[in-house]
This record gives sequence, C-alpha cells and structure tokens, in this order.
Amino acid sequence: MDAERTEIGTIGEFGLIAEITKDIKLQSPRTVVGVGDDAAVLAATEEGKRTVVSTDLLCEGVHFNLMYSPLKHLGYKAIVVNLSDICAMNARPTQVVVGLALSNRFSVEATKELYSGIRLACERYKVDLVGGDTTSSQSGLMISVTALGEVSEHSTCLRSGAKPGELLVASGELGSAFMGLQVLEREKHVFEEAPGAQPDLSGYEVLLERQLKPEARVDIVEELEKLEIVPTSMIDISDGLASEALHIAASSGCGVRIYEEKIPMNDQMYETARAFNLDPTLCTLSGGEDYELLFTVPQERFEDIRNHPMFSIVGHMTDDPEERKLITRNGMEAELKAQGWDSFNEEG
Amino acid sequence: MDAERTEIGTIGEFGLIAEITKDIKLQSPRTVVGVGDDAAVLAATEEGKRTVVSTDLLCEGVHFNLMYSPLKHLGYKAIVVNLSDICAMNARPTQVVVGLALSNRFSVEATKELYSGIRLACERYKVDLVGGDTTSSQSGLMISVTALGEVSEHSTCLRSGAKPGELLVASGELGSAFMGLQVLEREKHVFEEAPGAQPDLSGYEVLLERQLKPEARVDIVEELEKLEIVPTSMIDISDGLASEALHIAASSGCGVRIYEEKIPMNDQMYETARAFNLDPTLCTLSGGEDYELLFTVPQERFEDIRNHPMFSIVGHMTDDPEERKLITRNGMEAELKAQGWDSFNEEG
Repeated sequence: MDAERTEIGTIGEFGLIAEITKDIKLQSPRTVVGVGDDAAVLAATEEGKRTVVSTDLLCEGVHFNLMYSPLKHLGYKAIVVNLSDICAMNARPTQVVVGLALSNRFSVEATKELYSGIRLACERYKVDLVGGDTTSSQSGLMISVTALGEVSEHSTCLRSGAKPGELLVASGELGSAFMGLQVLEREKHVFEEAPGAQPDLSGYEVLLERQLKPEARVDIVEELEKLEIVPTSMIDISDGLASEALHIAASSGCGVRIYEEKIPMNDQMYETARAFNLDPTLCTLSGGEDYELLFTVPQERFEDIRNHPMFSIVGHMTDDPEERKLITRNGMEAELKAQGWDSFNEEG
Repeated sequence: MDAERTEIGTIGEFGLIAEITKDIKLQSPRTVVGVGDDAAVLAATEEGKRTVVSTDLLCEGVHFNLMYSPLKHLGYKAIVVNLSDICAMNARPTQVVVGLALSNRFSVEATKELYSGIRLACERYKVDLVGGDTTSSQSGLMISVTALGEVSEHSTCLRSGAKPGELLVASGELGSAFMGLQVLEREKHVFEEAPGAQPDLSGYEVLLERQLKPEARVDIVEELEKLEIVPTSMIDISDGLASEALHIAASSGCGVRIYEEKIPMNDQMYETARAFNLDPTLCTLSGGEDYELLFTVPQERFEDIRNHPMFSIVGHMTDDPEERKLITRNGMEAELKAQGWDSFNEEG
C-alpha cells in the first residue's frame, strides 16, 4: 500500500493520534478547545443561531472498496458526506469529530494518507476537526464522522415543510457519481480476470471525480441566502432523486410529480449510461451519492430559479399524499419508486 | 441469540430505523428536532454556556466480547463511556448521536435489544438520542457514539489547569471494572474447555456490574457544583489511574505523586485480585474502565474533600515535570507508569 511501512503497534494509539493531529489548524473563532482533551469545547452560539448535528458511519466493503478508493479521497469523502447533511438543513458546517477503526493491515503511513484527505476537506470547507477516537478493528476500516453546523432559526430547513403546488428544485447534475462507480466496478472486474491489466479510465474523469471526490453544496446554501430564498423543505441527494423526493413528500404529507425531461444530467453521464446499457434517468432516480441538494420553494420564486445556472426545477408537490409520479419524456405517468441503496438488502 | 429471529434484510434499513427509534422520548427543551431529518436541530445555548463534544468508537473483539457482554448492557455502556467524557469537562451531558454497523449475524430482535440499553442510558441520564446512522458491516458489531454537553465558561475543566501543590482527587473506587473483566475472562476459558459448564459468578456481583454496566459520574459534577468547587483540571479514568494522572501532569506541566495507601478500592476487588494472584494496586493503576473522575483542587479545599464520602485524595501535583512517583505502603518510591490499555499493541 506504501513504500515505507511503520506498524501502528510500534508507536501505539497515543503516538498515532499525536502523528495525525499535529498539523490541525483551528479556523472557527467558536472552537475554544479542539483535539487533545476528553471533549472539544465550543463557545456559546451567537444569539438566534441553532446547532445542527449529523452522524455517518462508513464501512469497508459496504460503503467503499479500498481497491479503487485512494485513502486520501476516502478521507475527503467521509467528511464531505457529513457536511452535505449539514447543508441539507440550510446550515453552515462548523466542526467535525472523526472516529477511525483500523485493522492491522493499516500502517502509520496509510493512516496519515487517510487523515490528509480528512484535513484537506476540513480546510476546503473551513471546518474544524475538534475531536476523534482512533482504535483498532478486528477486520476492515470503519470511519465514523459527526458534523456540527450553525443555522439561524429563521433559515432552518426540515424535510417536512413542503406544501402542495410548491416547486421541487435540484442543484447541480445527477447520476454522475453512480456512473463513476459503474466505471470503477467494471475496471475492477477486468483487473480480477486479468491481473496486471491497466485500468481504462480516460474519458470518465467527471464521473470518477463525482464518485471519488464529491463536494458538499455549501455554495448552494450561500446562494440561497444571497437570493433571500429559504426553502420550505430540503434534503441532500444521497440515495437518488426518487428516494429523496419521496422523503420530502412523505414528511410533508404531500404528493410529488417529477418530470423526466427536467432532471439535470451531464453529457458524460448520459453517454456512459447508454454505453453501459443503463437508463440514464434511472441512474439519476436511484443511483445515489450525488450529494446535491433537493428543496421546495413557493411558486412565487419561479423567476428566481428558472434560469439560475445552479438550479433545475424537476417537478412540484401536489395535494394528494398518495401521488408519487414520474412524468416521462413521452408524457406517460409512471410510479416514482425508491430503489435507493439499502446496505442490508444488498448484503442479504 | 434470541428465540424469535427477523433478518434485518426483510425490513430494510429504513424499517429498522423506524423500529428502533419509535419509542424515543425527547427530554431536553433545547432539542428542537431529534432523529428523522438530515441532522438534529438544537436551540441556541443559554448565554455563557459552552457546548462540549466527544466521540468514541467501540469495536467487537477489541472493546467488547459478545460472549459475555449482554447486548442491552453493551448499548448502555456505549452511551455511558461517552457521557463520562462529558463529565470529565465538568459538563452535563445533553444529547447523543449513535452510529451502528451490524453484520448479518444480527437480527432485528438483537438490534432492538442493543437499542434498549442505549435508550435506558439516555433515560437514566436525561440525555436525548437525537440522531444516528445504522448500516451493515462485513464483520462484527461497531458502535460509534458522539455525545454533546453543556458547561458554563467559568466551570469548564481541561486537563491542563493543574498547578504544583494541588491535591489530586479521585471519585469512587478503582479497579473493580478490571477485576470484573478478569472474572468474565476466566469463566470464558472454563466454558471453552468444558462447554456446558455453568459460569460461577456469584460473589463477584459488584465487579461484574462495574464491568458490564458502568455509570458516568454526573452526580460528581453536581456535587462539585454544590460544594462550589471548580477543579483546576479533570479527566475521566478510562485507562487506569496511572495513565490519567500522567495525562493531567503532562498537560499541566507538573509532576505528580500518588500514595498507594490512599487509592480507593473496595473489599471485593481487593480479595478477588489476591485470589487471582494479581496486585490490587496495579489493578487500580493500570486496569481501566472505572469511569470515575480524577481532578485537582487547590490545597485550600482540603477540608471540603478529606472526609467527603465520594472523594479520595490520592496524591498531589509537584513542580518538577519529570517527577512521576508512586509512594508505596512501605514508603518506597516507584516510577508511575502508564500501562493502560492500548488496542493497537494488544492486537499486535
């Protein structure tokens, strides 16, 4: 895995922690004490500001495959997927704590590589790494991240605030991360059947970047603030557009209609899906790992959104909670179904 | 593992989450939104109050053995060890988020049993379970807990505030949890050599309770407040008295002297250690998992502490940072060494 290899046992748990935390720079004025004590200490929130908290667990063999996820990318992604949850509340991420369980396959160098990605994401998003736990595992790598963020009371977006008639809006483009994973899986199979074969990844850069190094849409949270738009509901798209739209609909007691022709996709995703014999629309609906934001706004905000390059109006909410429809390009109505990733079923 | 067995795959990730979160009751007025959205939402802190955050990862085969840790106890303990970190800041725990990675050995019933212990601890400590992540793992059970707490600026205790001459004080009694583990390990070996043998655990109740169902000393935090004592430094005793005393000394730039005769131990621990041919003092110094608090106070507070039933003055800080001494019962000086648990070395 690396040229130099230092066993973690030779420097011990405290030595490893010292090694991986020595370069941490705190950025938030609210962070009073970061790593190194029993707990991190954060100054009181500003008046009117709430704290949001989200946690995720990433497990080797379930959420990532070390065969094609470089450790630095993996560390970066582990942070980003949590920040995305914070963004989904219309909040700004402020701090993270990270738990790592490492098997003895991992060297000190590999752990530092993983941490370099964690730190890079923290720097990129101006988030403080304020605590953690590092331990051994009997098998496999596990990364647990808990992220904190701040949002004013007025701006807080839950999943449950959508109302009938409101516009359903997605940021960015969908389906690329999923197609990136398909490309990586294909190359893995090629490699397994002919070890030594060089992976053929050219032409798939956008897709691979979206899969291996996704970004959290803090910029969307900032843009919404600039536009003085507080979405009535919001969620991040981690399990595919269909699953997330259904979450908003169910939480809000509304129906939902999505228009196939309005779903944002880029050419590389579209072409690759066709070449892989996959339906591009299905990739956006069920693919997942986009980490874009999906939100609802009142119809009055139509003009602010319709030509904005960051946003696509993909559908609208309806008053019948039983209605969950995809309107296809040829005008047919199909039932919108969540076929998002479910780790327990995949495993079973 | 249980009479009824429902595979998690049959109800899926969302079904499982619905099942284990349905009975959660929120207790803190600060918890605005608990589980069920992308992140939990907490109201602004009261003026002058800080937030403290701590995270821990517990891995099967490293931190616990399901052969003798009942799942309900394990869930309880996973919460308590985190709350103990919050107490170590002189703070009151307020919320937790929990990540669970489950292998397919785990049924829905087993997961609910684990969660019943998590919920019991939350109720006992009036802490809100506000979020989580539940996923499958390729092998073994992993529990990640992040705890939040509150403390006033004035009362915050770091490890680094001890000064030469100050008293070093421990709460409760030490070494029992470690001896409880020795008893369980012995019975495990007996069972492995003669399957069907009934475990002989009578007479060890105190030790087993301390190992399997430890408590976080929120009551000590409350008692200190009542006594109007703000420790100059504090830490929780998770890795043994020696390791924690050395942490305080190193963080504070002091030396430390501990008196063997002052270390609090109960009779059952003492007698069992002798019967197991172990040095009781070494069990307190290096055993770990006591989750008592260790703190320093100025000498002026001697009278408040000396006869208080919750506290034992075990030593004092000195001005030579190189001094790390254990004064034995017979007046000899020994070097105080941290031989606390280090999961990487144990594994290696």
